[in-house]
Amino acid sequence: MNLMDDLNMQPIGTIHSPYTETTQVPKGCGASHDAKGTLEILPRFEEGLTDIEGFSHLYVIWMFHKSEGFQLMGTPPSDNTPHGVFATRSPRRPNPIGLTVVRLLRREGRMLQVSGVDMLDGTPILDIKPYLSSVPTEELRRGWLAEAEDRQKRNAESADKSAI
Amino acid sequence: MNLMDDLNMQPIGTIHSPYTETTQVPKGCGASHDAKGTLEILPRFEEGLTDIEGFSHLYVIWMFHKSEGFQLMGTPPSDNTPHGVFATRSPRRPNPIGLTVVRLLRREGRMLQVSGVDMLDGTPILDIKPYLSSVPTEELRRGWLAEAEDRQKRNAESADKSAI
Repeated sequence: MNLMDDLNMQPIGTIHSPYTETTQVPKGCGASHDAKGTLEILPRFEEGLTDIEGFSHLYVIWMFHKSEGFQLMGTPPSDNTPHGVFATRSPRRPNPIGLTVVRLLRREGRMLQVSGVDMLDGTPILDIKPYLSSVPTEELRRGWLAEAEDRQKRNAESADKSAI
Repeated sequence: MNLMDDLNMQPIGTIHSPYTETTQVPKGCGASHDAKGTLEILPRFEEGLTDIEGFSHLYVIWMFHKSEGFQLMGTPPSDNTPHGVFATRSPRRPNPIGLTVVRLLRREGRMLQVSGVDMLDGTPILDIKPYLSSVPTEELRRGWLAEAEDRQKRNAESADKSAI
Protein backbone atom coordinates (compact mmCIF):
# COMPACT_ATOMS: atom_id res chain seq x y z
CA MET A 1 0.00 0.00 0.00
CA ASN A 2 1.31 3.44 -0.84
CA LEU A 3 1.33 5.68 2.23
CA MET A 4 -0.39 8.44 0.32
CA ASP A 5 -3.27 6.28 -0.87
CA ASP A 6 -6.67 7.11 0.46
CA LEU A 7 -7.94 4.56 2.92
CA ASN A 8 -11.54 3.57 2.52
CA MET A 9 -13.73 2.74 5.50
CA GLN A 10 -17.32 1.59 5.79
CA PRO A 11 -19.59 1.85 8.85
CA ILE A 12 -20.22 -1.42 10.72
CA GLY A 13 -23.28 0.04 12.43
CA THR A 14 -24.87 3.10 14.01
CA ILE A 15 -25.05 4.67 17.46
CA HIS A 16 -28.43 5.49 19.00
CA SER A 17 -27.86 8.26 21.52
CA PRO A 18 -30.03 10.77 23.42
CA TYR A 19 -28.06 13.61 21.78
CA THR A 20 -29.41 14.99 18.52
CA GLU A 21 -27.40 18.25 18.54
CA THR A 22 -23.72 18.78 19.39
CA THR A 23 -24.74 21.46 21.93
CA GLN A 24 -26.48 18.75 24.02
CA VAL A 25 -23.33 16.65 24.52
CA PRO A 26 -21.75 17.37 27.94
CA LYS A 27 -18.35 18.98 27.34
CA GLY A 28 -15.49 20.49 29.28
CA CYS A 29 -14.23 20.02 32.81
CA GLY A 30 -16.38 17.84 35.03
CA ALA A 31 -18.76 16.89 32.21
CA SER A 32 -20.43 13.62 33.17
CA HIS A 33 -20.59 10.90 30.58
CA ASP A 34 -23.14 8.44 31.90
CA ALA A 35 -25.73 8.75 29.12
CA LYS A 36 -27.13 5.46 27.89
CA GLY A 37 -27.25 4.47 24.25
CA THR A 38 -27.31 1.54 21.85
CA LEU A 39 -24.68 0.37 19.40
CA GLU A 40 -26.63 -1.20 16.51
CA ILE A 41 -24.37 -3.45 14.46
CA LEU A 42 -25.32 -4.28 10.86
CA PRO A 43 -26.72 -7.84 10.48
CA ARG A 44 -23.80 -8.97 8.32
CA PHE A 45 -21.31 -8.18 11.10
CA GLU A 46 -23.30 -9.67 14.03
CA GLU A 47 -21.15 -12.82 14.25
CA GLY A 48 -18.17 -10.58 15.06
CA LEU A 49 -19.81 -9.75 18.42
CA THR A 50 -19.40 -13.35 19.68
CA ASP A 51 -18.14 -13.38 23.31
CA ILE A 52 -18.17 -9.59 23.60
CA GLU A 53 -20.56 -9.85 26.57
CA GLY A 54 -17.67 -10.94 28.82
CA PHE A 55 -16.08 -7.49 28.68
CA SER A 56 -17.18 -4.70 31.00
CA HIS A 57 -15.86 -1.86 28.83
CA LEU A 58 -15.41 -1.38 25.10
CA TYR A 59 -13.59 1.03 22.85
CA VAL A 60 -15.91 2.46 20.21
CA ILE A 61 -14.20 3.99 17.18
CA TRP A 62 -16.58 6.21 15.24
CA MET A 63 -16.88 9.03 12.71
CA PHE A 64 -17.52 12.70 13.49
CA HIS A 65 -20.05 12.61 10.65
CA LYS A 66 -21.27 16.19 11.20
CA SER A 67 -17.78 17.66 11.25
CA GLU A 68 -16.42 19.39 8.15
CA GLY A 69 -12.77 20.15 7.52
CA PHE A 70 -10.10 20.39 10.21
CA GLN A 71 -8.29 22.97 12.28
CA LEU A 72 -4.75 22.30 13.57
CA MET A 73 -5.17 24.73 16.49
CA GLY A 74 -8.39 25.12 18.46
CA THR A 75 -9.73 26.21 21.83
CA PRO A 76 -11.52 23.35 23.61
CA PRO A 77 -14.60 23.98 25.80
CA SER A 78 -12.55 23.16 28.92
CA ASP A 79 -9.95 25.92 28.40
CA ASN A 80 -9.52 29.46 27.17
CA THR A 81 -6.30 29.03 25.18
CA PRO A 82 -5.79 27.16 21.90
CA HIS A 83 -4.04 23.78 21.75
CA GLY A 84 -2.97 21.49 18.91
CA VAL A 85 -5.74 19.25 17.59
CA PHE A 86 -3.79 16.09 18.55
CA ALA A 87 -3.68 17.30 22.18
CA THR A 88 -7.49 17.67 22.24
CA ARG A 89 -10.63 15.70 21.42
CA SER A 90 -11.79 18.31 18.88
CA PRO A 91 -14.12 16.96 16.15
CA ARG A 92 -12.30 19.03 13.50
CA ARG A 93 -9.45 16.54 12.95
CA PRO A 94 -7.52 15.65 9.76
CA ASN A 95 -9.24 12.24 9.95
CA PRO A 96 -12.55 12.83 11.76
CA ILE A 97 -12.27 9.73 13.97
CA GLY A 98 -13.85 9.68 17.44
CA LEU A 99 -12.92 7.33 20.28
CA THR A 100 -15.06 6.63 23.34
CA VAL A 101 -14.78 4.10 26.15
CA VAL A 102 -18.27 2.82 27.00
CA ARG A 103 -19.51 0.44 29.66
CA LEU A 104 -21.28 -2.59 28.18
CA LEU A 105 -24.56 -3.06 30.07
CA ARG A 106 -25.86 -6.00 28.03
CA ARG A 107 -25.96 -7.50 24.56
CA GLU A 108 -29.27 -8.18 22.80
CA GLY A 109 -28.37 -9.87 19.52
CA ARG A 110 -26.76 -7.22 17.36
CA MET A 111 -27.70 -4.43 19.79
CA LEU A 112 -25.22 -3.47 22.50
CA GLN A 113 -26.77 -1.50 25.35
CA VAL A 114 -24.06 0.76 26.74
CA SER A 115 -23.52 3.73 29.04
CA GLY A 116 -21.05 6.56 28.65
CA VAL A 117 -22.02 7.67 25.15
CA ASP A 118 -20.95 11.15 24.04
CA MET A 119 -21.75 10.76 20.36
CA LEU A 120 -24.64 12.20 18.37
CA ASP A 121 -27.62 10.03 17.47
CA GLY A 122 -26.96 8.40 14.09
CA THR A 123 -23.15 8.40 14.40
CA PRO A 124 -21.53 5.74 12.16
CA ILE A 125 -19.46 3.11 14.02
CA LEU A 126 -16.15 2.07 12.44
CA ASP A 127 -14.89 -0.49 14.95
CA ILE A 128 -15.38 -1.96 18.42
CA LYS A 129 -12.56 -3.40 20.51
CA PRO A 130 -12.36 -4.83 24.03
CA TYR A 131 -10.92 -2.46 26.63
CA LEU A 132 -8.16 -4.53 28.19
CA SER A 133 -6.08 -2.48 30.57
CA SER A 134 -5.70 0.87 32.21
CA VAL A 135 -2.77 3.16 32.76
CA PRO A 136 -2.14 3.33 36.54
CA THR A 137 -3.45 6.66 37.89
CA GLU A 138 -0.08 7.54 39.42
CA GLU A 139 1.56 7.36 35.97
CA LEU A 140 -0.99 9.52 34.18
CA ARG A 141 -0.27 13.18 33.33
CA ARG A 142 -3.03 15.14 31.63
CA GLY A 143 -1.16 18.24 30.34
CA TRP A 144 -3.14 21.42 29.68
CA LEU A 145 -6.37 19.72 30.78
CA ALA A 146 -5.17 19.28 34.38
CA GLU A 147 -4.07 22.94 34.41
CA ALA A 148 -7.42 24.10 32.98
CA GLU A 149 -9.30 22.08 35.61
CA ASP A 150 -7.19 23.55 38.44
CA ARG A 151 -7.80 27.06 37.10
CA GLN A 152 -11.58 26.53 36.91
CA LYS A 153 -11.57 25.11 40.43
CA ARG A 154 -9.68 28.13 41.78
CA ASN A 155 -12.05 30.50 39.97
CA ALA A 156 -15.07 28.67 41.40
CA GLU A 157 -13.58 28.88 44.91
CA SER A 158 -12.90 32.62 44.67
CA ALA A 159 -16.42 33.13 43.26
CA ASP A 160 -17.77 31.27 46.31
CA LYS A 161 -15.80 33.51 48.64
CA SER A 162 -16.92 36.72 46.97
CA ALA A 163 -20.53 35.52 47.22
CA ILE A 164 -20.25 35.29 51.02
CA MET B 1 -23.61 11.99 4.91
CA ASN B 2 -25.22 8.79 3.80
CA LEU B 3 -24.40 5.97 6.23
CA MET B 4 -23.38 3.70 3.38
CA ASP B 5 -20.93 6.18 1.85
CA ASP B 6 -17.32 5.21 1.91
CA LEU B 7 -15.31 7.26 4.33
CA ASN B 8 -11.95 8.41 3.09
CA MET B 9 -8.95 8.71 5.36
CA GLN B 10 -5.40 9.88 4.79
CA PRO B 11 -2.35 9.11 6.92
CA ILE B 12 -1.08 11.98 9.10
CA GLY B 13 2.30 10.28 9.52
CA THR B 14 4.21 7.03 9.93
CA ILE B 15 5.36 4.82 12.79
CA HIS B 16 9.03 3.82 13.05
CA SER B 17 9.15 0.60 15.04
CA PRO B 18 11.71 -2.18 15.68
CA TYR B 19 9.26 -4.70 14.18
CA THR B 20 9.51 -5.38 10.44
CA GLU B 21 7.51 -8.65 10.45
CA THR B 22 4.23 -9.44 12.25
CA THR B 23 5.89 -12.52 13.79
CA GLN B 24 8.24 -10.22 15.75
CA VAL B 25 5.47 -8.35 17.57
CA PRO B 26 4.97 -9.78 21.11
CA LYS B 27 1.48 -11.32 21.24
CA GLY B 28 -0.71 -13.28 23.60
CA CYS B 29 -0.87 -13.53 27.37
CA GLY B 30 1.88 -11.76 29.24
CA ALA B 31 3.35 -10.20 26.08
CA SER B 32 5.34 -7.16 27.11
CA HIS B 33 4.83 -3.98 25.15
CA ASP B 34 7.73 -1.76 26.10
CA ALA B 35 9.36 -1.43 22.67
CA LYS B 36 10.43 2.08 21.76
CA GLY B 37 9.49 3.77 18.52
CA THR B 38 8.92 7.10 16.83
CA LEU B 39 5.72 8.66 15.55
CA GLU B 40 6.76 10.83 12.59
CA ILE B 41 4.06 13.36 11.78
CA LEU B 42 3.92 14.90 8.30
CA PRO B 43 5.24 18.49 8.21
CA ARG B 44 1.85 19.94 7.26
CA PHE B 45 0.27 18.55 10.46
CA GLU B 46 3.09 19.49 12.90
CA GLU B 47 1.22 22.48 14.35
CA GLY B 48 -1.46 20.04 15.55
CA LEU B 49 1.07 18.61 18.06
CA THR B 50 1.18 21.88 20.06
CA ASP B 51 1.05 21.17 23.84
CA ILE B 52 1.05 17.39 23.37
CA GLU B 53 4.23 17.14 25.47
CA GLY B 54 2.18 17.70 28.65
CA PHE B 55 0.51 14.29 28.31
CA SER B 56 2.18 11.13 29.61
CA HIS B 57 0.18 8.73 27.43
CA LEU B 58 -1.38 8.99 23.98
CA TYR B 59 -3.86 7.01 21.95
CA VAL B 60 -2.47 6.19 18.51
CA ILE B 61 -5.07 5.23 15.90
CA TRP B 62 -3.43 3.50 12.95
CA MET B 63 -3.99 1.23 9.94
CA PHE B 64 -3.26 -2.49 9.76
CA HIS B 65 -1.70 -1.77 6.35
CA LYS B 66 -0.44 -5.35 5.83
CA SER B 67 -3.82 -6.92 6.63
CA GLU B 68 -6.09 -8.05 3.81
CA GLY B 69 -9.78 -8.78 4.14
CA PHE B 70 -11.54 -9.60 7.40
CA GLN B 71 -12.72 -12.59 9.39
CA LEU B 72 -15.70 -12.31 11.77
CA MET B 73 -14.49 -15.25 13.92
CA GLY B 74 -10.85 -15.91 14.70
CA THR B 75 -8.60 -17.60 17.25
CA PRO B 76 -6.27 -15.10 18.93
CA PRO B 77 -2.70 -16.06 19.94
CA SER B 78 -3.70 -15.94 23.62
CA ASP B 79 -6.41 -18.62 23.38
CA ASN B 80 -7.31 -21.87 21.65
CA THR B 81 -10.95 -21.14 20.84
CA PRO B 82 -12.36 -18.68 18.30
CA HIS B 83 -13.97 -15.39 19.34
CA GLY B 84 -15.78 -12.63 17.45
CA VAL B 85 -13.46 -10.09 15.84
CA PHE B 86 -14.94 -7.22 17.92
CA ALA B 87 -14.00 -9.12 21.11
CA THR B 88 -10.34 -9.37 19.97
CA ARG B 89 -7.53 -7.18 18.64
CA SER B 90 -7.26 -9.21 15.42
CA PRO B 91 -5.82 -7.29 12.44
CA ARG B 92 -8.41 -8.85 10.09
CA ARG B 93 -11.23 -6.39 10.91
CA PRO B 94 -14.00 -4.96 8.68
CA ASN B 95 -12.21 -1.60 9.00
CA PRO B 96 -8.51 -2.43 9.61
CA ILE B 97 -8.03 0.16 12.37
CA GLY B 98 -5.48 -0.41 15.13
CA LEU B 99 -5.45 1.31 18.52
CA THR B 100 -2.47 1.46 20.87
CA VAL B 101 -1.83 3.38 24.08
CA VAL B 102 1.79 4.57 24.09
CA ARG B 103 3.83 6.44 26.66
CA LEU B 104 5.18 9.75 25.34
CA LEU B 105 8.88 9.95 26.22
CA ARG B 106 9.60 13.26 24.50
CA ARG B 107 8.71 15.40 21.51
CA GLU B 108 11.37 16.52 19.03
CA GLY B 109 9.58 18.79 16.57
CA ARG B 110 7.31 16.56 14.50
CA MET B 111 8.86 13.39 15.95
CA LEU B 112 7.27 11.84 19.04
CA GLN B 113 9.53 9.38 20.85
CA VAL B 114 7.29 6.82 22.53
CA SER B 115 7.38 3.44 24.25
CA GLY B 116 4.83 0.67 24.07
CA VAL B 117 4.67 0.30 20.29
CA ASP B 118 3.21 -2.93 18.89
CA MET B 119 2.89 -1.82 15.28
CA LEU B 120 5.01 -2.74 12.29
CA ASP B 121 7.66 -0.36 10.98
CA GLY B 122 6.06 1.89 8.35
CA THR B 123 2.53 1.71 9.77
CA PRO B 124 0.40 4.70 8.68
CA ILE B 125 -0.95 6.85 11.54
CA LEU B 126 -4.54 8.09 11.26
CA ASP B 127 -4.93 10.07 14.48
CA ILE B 128 -3.37 10.85 17.86
CA LYS B 129 -5.41 11.77 20.93
CA PRO B 130 -4.51 12.48 24.55
CA TYR B 131 -5.18 9.60 26.94
CA LEU B 132 -7.28 11.25 29.63
CA SER B 133 -8.63 8.73 32.08
CA SER B 134 -8.59 5.11 33.09
CA VAL B 135 -11.31 2.67 34.03
CA PRO B 136 -10.79 1.76 37.71
CA THR B 137 -9.24 -1.72 37.93
CA GLU B 138 -12.01 -3.00 40.18
CA GLU B 139 -14.60 -2.21 37.48
CA LEU B 140 -12.77 -3.92 34.64
CA ARG B 141 -13.82 -7.36 33.33
CA ARG B 142 -11.76 -8.86 30.52
CA GLY B 143 -14.00 -11.72 29.29
CA TRP B 144 -12.40 -14.64 27.46
CA LEU B 145 -8.93 -13.11 27.86
CA ALA B 146 -8.99 -13.40 31.68
CA GLU B 147 -10.16 -17.03 31.31
CA ALA B 148 -7.43 -17.82 28.76
CA GLU B 149 -4.80 -16.29 31.05
CA ASP B 150 -6.04 -18.33 34.03
CA ARG B 151 -5.97 -21.52 31.93
CA GLN B 152 -2.41 -20.86 30.73
CA LYS B 153 -1.34 -20.15 34.30
CA ARG B 154 -2.86 -23.42 35.55
CA ASN B 155 -1.22 -25.34 32.69
CA ALA B 156 2.15 -23.78 33.48
CA GLU B 157 1.74 -24.72 37.16
CA SER B 158 0.85 -28.34 36.42
CA ALA B 159 3.78 -28.51 33.97
CA ASP B 160 6.02 -27.25 36.79
CA LYS B 161 4.70 -29.96 39.11
CA SER B 162 5.13 -32.77 36.57
CA ALA B 163 8.70 -31.57 35.99
CA ILE B 164 9.52 -32.17 39.67
